[in-house]
Amino acid sequence: MDLIWVVPVSGLLALLFVGYLAWDVLKRDKGTKEMQEVAATIFEGAVAFIKRQYLTIAILAIVAAVIIGVLVSLEQFTETNVKGMELGIRTAVAFLVGAAASALSGIIGMYVAVQSNVRVAGAARKGVEPALAVALRGGAVSGFLVVGLSLIGVYLMFVAYGGLAGGEAARNAPFLIVGMGFGASFVALFAQLGGGIYTKAADVGSDLVGKVEAGIPEDDPRNAGVIADLVGDNVGDCAGRGADLFESTVAENIGAMILGVAIYVVTKNVDWIFFPLVVRAFGLIASIVGVWATTSLPFFKLNPGEEPMNPMFRGFALTVVLAGVMMYYVVMQMLGNIVFFWAGVVGLVTSVAFFLITMYYTESRWRPVQSIAKASLRGTGPNIITGLAVGLENTAAPVVAVGIALIGSYWLGTQAAVALGVAPYVAGVFGTAVATMGMLMPAAFILAMDTFGPIVDNAGGIVEMSGAPEEIRKGTDALDAAGNTTKALTKGYAIGSAALAAFLLFGAYLDKVAEVRKAMGLPAEVVKASHTVDLGKVEVFVGAMLGAGLIFLFSALAMRAVSEVAEKIVDEVRRQFREIPGIMEGKNKPDYARAVDITARGSLQAMVAPGLLAVGVPIIVGIVLRAEAEAAFLMVGTIAGIILATVMNNGGGAWDNAKKFIESGEFHDETGKVHKKGSDAHKAAVVGDTVGDPFKDTAGPSLHVLIKLLATITLVLAPLFI
Amino acid sequence: MDLIWVVPVSGLLALLFVGYLAWDVLKRDKGTKEMQEVAATIFEGAVAFIKRQYLTIAILAIVAAVIIGVLVSLEQFTETNVKGMELGIRTAVAFLVGAAASALSGIIGMYVAVQSNVRVAGAARKGVEPALAVALRGGAVSGFLVVGLSLIGVYLMFVAYGGLAGGEAARNAPFLIVGMGFGASFVALFAQLGGGIYTKAADVGSDLVGKVEAGIPEDDPRNAGVIADLVGDNVGDCAGRGADLFESTVAENIGAMILGVAIYVVTKNVDWIFFPLVVRAFGLIASIVGVWATTSLPFFKLNPGEEPMNPMFRGFALTVVLAGVMMYYVVMQMLGNIVFFWAGVVGLVTSVAFFLITMYYTESRWRPVQSIAKASLRGTGPNIITGLAVGLENTAAPVVAVGIALIGSYWLGTQAAVALGVAPYVAGVFGTAVATMGMLMPAAFILAMDTFGPIVDNAGGIVEMSGAPEEIRKGTDALDAAGNTTKALTKGYAIGSAALAAFLLFGAYLDKVAEVRKAMGLPAEVVKASHTVDLGKVEVFVGAMLGAGLIFLFSALAMRAVSEVAEKIVDEVRRQFREIPGIMEGKNKPDYARAVDITARGSLQAMVAPGLLAVGVPIIVGIVLRAEAEAAFLMVGTIAGIILATVMNNGGGAWDNAKKFIESGEFHDETGKVHKKGSDAHKAAVVGDTVGDPFKDTAGPSLHVLIKLLATITLVLAPLFI
Repeated sequence: MDLIWVVPVSGLLALLFVGYLAWDVLKRDKGTKEMQEVAATIFEGAVAFIKRQYLTIAILAIVAAVIIGVLVSLEQFTETNVKGMELGIRTAVAFLVGAAASALSGIIGMYVAVQSNVRVAGAARKGVEPALAVALRGGAVSGFLVVGLSLIGVYLMFVAYGGLAGGEAARNAPFLIVGMGFGASFVALFAQLGGGIYTKAADVGSDLVGKVEAGIPEDDPRNAGVIADLVGDNVGDCAGRGADLFESTVAENIGAMILGVAIYVVTKNVDWIFFPLVVRAFGLIASIVGVWATTSLPFFKLNPGEEPMNPMFRGFALTVVLAGVMMYYVVMQMLGNIVFFWAGVVGLVTSVAFFLITMYYTESRWRPVQSIAKASLRGTGPNIITGLAVGLENTAAPVVAVGIALIGSYWLGTQAAVALGVAPYVAGVFGTAVATMGMLMPAAFILAMDTFGPIVDNAGGIVEMSGAPEEIRKGTDALDAAGNTTKALTKGYAIGSAALAAFLLFGAYLDKVAEVRKAMGLPAEVVKASHTVDLGKVEVFVGAMLGAGLIFLFSALAMRAVSEVAEKIVDEVRRQFREIPGIMEGKNKPDYARAVDITARGSLQAMVAPGLLAVGVPIIVGIVLRAEAEAAFLMVGTIAGIILATVMNNGGGAWDNAKKFIESGEFHDETGKVHKKGSDAHKAAVVGDTVGDPFKDTAGPSLHVLIKLLATITLVLAPLFI
Repeated sequence: MDLIWVVPVSGLLALLFVGYLAWDVLKRDKGTKEMQEVAATIFEGAVAFIKRQYLTIAILAIVAAVIIGVLVSLEQFTETNVKGMELGIRTAVAFLVGAAASALSGIIGMYVAVQSNVRVAGAARKGVEPALAVALRGGAVSGFLVVGLSLIGVYLMFVAYGGLAGGEAARNAPFLIVGMGFGASFVALFAQLGGGIYTKAADVGSDLVGKVEAGIPEDDPRNAGVIADLVGDNVGDCAGRGADLFESTVAENIGAMILGVAIYVVTKNVDWIFFPLVVRAFGLIASIVGVWATTSLPFFKLNPGEEPMNPMFRGFALTVVLAGVMMYYVVMQMLGNIVFFWAGVVGLVTSVAFFLITMYYTESRWRPVQSIAKASLRGTGPNIITGLAVGLENTAAPVVAVGIALIGSYWLGTQAAVALGVAPYVAGVFGTAVATMGMLMPAAFILAMDTFGPIVDNAGGIVEMSGAPEEIRKGTDALDAAGNTTKALTKGYAIGSAALAAFLLFGAYLDKVAEVRKAMGLPAEVVKASHTVDLGKVEVFVGAMLGAGLIFLFSALAMRAVSEVAEKIVDEVRRQFREIPGIMEGKNKPDYARAVDITARGSLQAMVAPGLLAVGVPIIVGIVLRAEAEAAFLMVGTIAGIILATVMNNGGGAWDNAKKFIESGEFHDETGKVHKKGSDAHKAAVVGDTVGDPFKDTAGPSLHVLIKLLATITLVLAPLFI
């Protein structure tokens, strides 16, 4: 228990760091009057949407909390000594705390991001380096808030439910707080869905009428949809992603603690339960150092003429190395067995592997993006076909990487089984949990890089709309391209950690099923069989099939929602071009607010159906086909979700960068002829990007939340399925 | 054993029927001289490609046969009394017999189809009814040849390996002939891949330069790629699909016989092994009656002014009803237990359900296709996004239908367990096998409808290219639209039967693993554990993940191949437009042969990599991760394959029919304005169709073969993985 104090301390440190960063960003110059005007309009739209969205989500969450509380109260048997109504209330409270914290981190993160946009635009007048520093610091507010809050939240709930008391109470506490993960993923699902639909409907809609039909540039003030598009970056990419990563870290952390219980029961050393909290606390500290170095230290900062990605790579490398050292210290102090250090290293290496794989598939330096650009020379059809092929292809390397990491960390864990006196499975699955914790150590740094993306995107939009000189636009363009890369990298990382975490979350679910069966007084062989998920049984196989099916249906609904809302925006912008005279000549301003309102209403309506589907289907499957089939549902749903999300995230990223590659003027055909902005190849690439948009910013990220939601629903409601 | 004589008799009957149909089609009028000229060019191109393709496949198959023979010879333990070198030789011979028969049915079917094209064109001058009859009879040649040959082939191999002798020999024979299924799927994979790449590269390539760039109609003789496109319909849709359905029926038949062995061992009634053969023999007879009625009987034939699909529906309904009656007779005669009749009915009902689901998602009468047409009003991007959403969405209903069918037929089977004195699992999985056999009963009728598609497509092309009057073109257009529907329906049916068959094939694999372990003298609990596929084990979970990963990577390679070969054709047609003077004015003919040759060479090169991947990965996974992980690889790979193939088949079909819907002139927007051929919406729909082409005719059907190949590889090589 010696190191547990690091958890609240590092959490507070993170919040102090957030305060410092926010203060630092907010005191900066807000640029010209025109810039401030544009920023104010964006701010207004974003706040209006977020208010309506979270009101809807709050109502859904409260209804869900009551239902869950009642369902859990009715469960006759439980693995903890807390039972009946009290268990129901505790679970509902944990659900609401998770939900509220998830909402809070999404909202505050977005608020600071919106405030950062205009300051980045302002700083861009002085150069790329200060603009990058402001953007990364603004992004770090969101990143550290999410990770810090998730750590403090889990810690406080754990303490509140008696986790520090040791003995039975410590053993029960992780099971009692799983509701928190469910609440967090519940909110994240709707936040990501609603925000994701908003951002891409606005983006696709205004691009279609603006760039493709009217032939005016992106972010052109004559386009009525352009403010909605900029609002979308904030509500989708910032608020949605923040909520998403909040629930990921919460769910994985609690899952790892549940696995620790199995070792604690034998060793009576409570450090096995605390370990996941402590190791993530150290990861938070490593990330603070990394961000601070990237934005302040001479060697790490952006050098003149350098690619904007480079300082972030140096900062990330520093964070990973620091995290490795800390992992060694924490493992040796708490677990006293070197094999788990190596399991942690497997996790850190996996995070780097996912970085490299994502870069290969989404950067214009390598074959995949170049092949899409090349296909664009033959038309839109080949562009789409090649983009889809790249998306499908890029699932192979992640699957193999995760496979190796899982088997490797599991094997490492089993090497400690004899020393610990536990079954090889118990030690092995804890090995995968340590690897996941290792992969999550640099999470705050990565999240900072992620929010960097929409901030610079918005800054670019503000610069363009405020009519700032070409010079400045060039600087923000370079940052925008870097932002695209960081967004793709984060999504790759998030999916990678979800894949690695999958096994630990299954393990936690199976542990819970076994515990409940034991509490029911079932025979020992039935309890033992709880850890078997036998695909050879017909209902288990059907459960697996339904899990994969849900993933595809959910993606379909998300994609369709984007298309339907985008159609409304297309119609509205066309109507404004037609009915408001002088828009095209710049004499009259379009009615931005109306476009923002149409997008908001459409997205909020559209998010409900896929959200309820995601919550309802796993419950129905569990009740009808029972616990073992539910496990297969969860596992194969997770596999399908990880793979389809990878198709969508990286496929979308590759399409986007193929378009940007052509726009850069560096793309030429076999004869050496350059095809740039405005060429037929560019037009084809713009359509490809339009298709990739809902892939990478709506369906893909929503799938990521869905996977986590499946894990937490099954974990909380497991007793219903037995 | 009383009914086994029906098998050779029905097989011969089918071949006689094929002979009659071929004679009937070939004696028909071949149309005008211009028609014959075009047909001759197509024939030449198709034969040239098929020769080169099957030469490549033959070499690959012989190498594979030797490798398999050696691998099997080295296996020390086997479930049969045949061992060592003799087992190796028998397996290699079975492999080559399967390969040769698969190739034969592909080639002959295609040959007759190519001969039918021009006769349909000729008959179209007299009206739609005679053209439909000729096309369906031409298609039936392929259909009955494939199903008849597969039945006779399995029967003869079974007899040759001692199956009729009863006792140990009958028990061993199904295991000894599994190599035949492997050989058939091996050839089918390359046939479908090579043909699928050819047909869609040619189609996409010539559409892109012709329809989109040069603005000339489809099948216009000025387009150098147009003959390659027409050749493609024959080598992809006819030869490829023929080989595919040949291996499906073989693999599923043998798998069902292996499951029968488990009941035979207890009941000592050899009818449990014969049943799958006999029931399919009756299905063949039902299909003969169905096709004969549709093309000859007054009530069933096409009435004047009627939709061409209607007579085929009546014929299909007749076939299903007859099959149901026969199923009752065969079950009561051979198995003596009514529950299996109901399991068979589940299969027949499932085949109808898949028909209805596919129709809903691919016909312009319902929401999905209409939503794609509507999205086209807003541009290409929305068309693609909506099409993808439809594709993703349409997986849900099939998954649920198969889930219900599997659980239902399994449950029915278990009701017979006590009476038979076998374990519930053994009877249950045999129930799913009976359902699959039920679903396969109308296979020959369906395959006839399938080959009908490319025949009428080609006939339309011949009519267009030979400059026949508009009147005739209208008739063949109506048939072509019906052909699109039949092709979509067949693919839906094929995937549905694959999904239903999946569980029986897994069962056969697990049975084989158990038998080998028993032969190795392993303890009883290890043998019993062979039927458990525990996803809770890390290597089993990783195997599952790799299975899904292979599906996506394979699809990527197939899609990319189409894109790359299409690019070559685009370049070639562009070159001919540029360099051959007077093409556009119709003064000079383009060099069709060169385009055909480029397509052929490109497709043959492109088919090798994905093919070897499909064969190699399951072997590597089995050897590294062992038998249980291999089972999960197979199962989750199958789930992913079925779902992704459904996305691609029906998504592609929906895109195609959205385009056709706009071309029909019946599509109008909310204001009532009609958008027809040549409108912006039509242009967007043409691009969507281009994207859907490799989905529905290359990757989708190839995935279907891949699933079967996985099942047969694992079945043959199971002892290597223990």
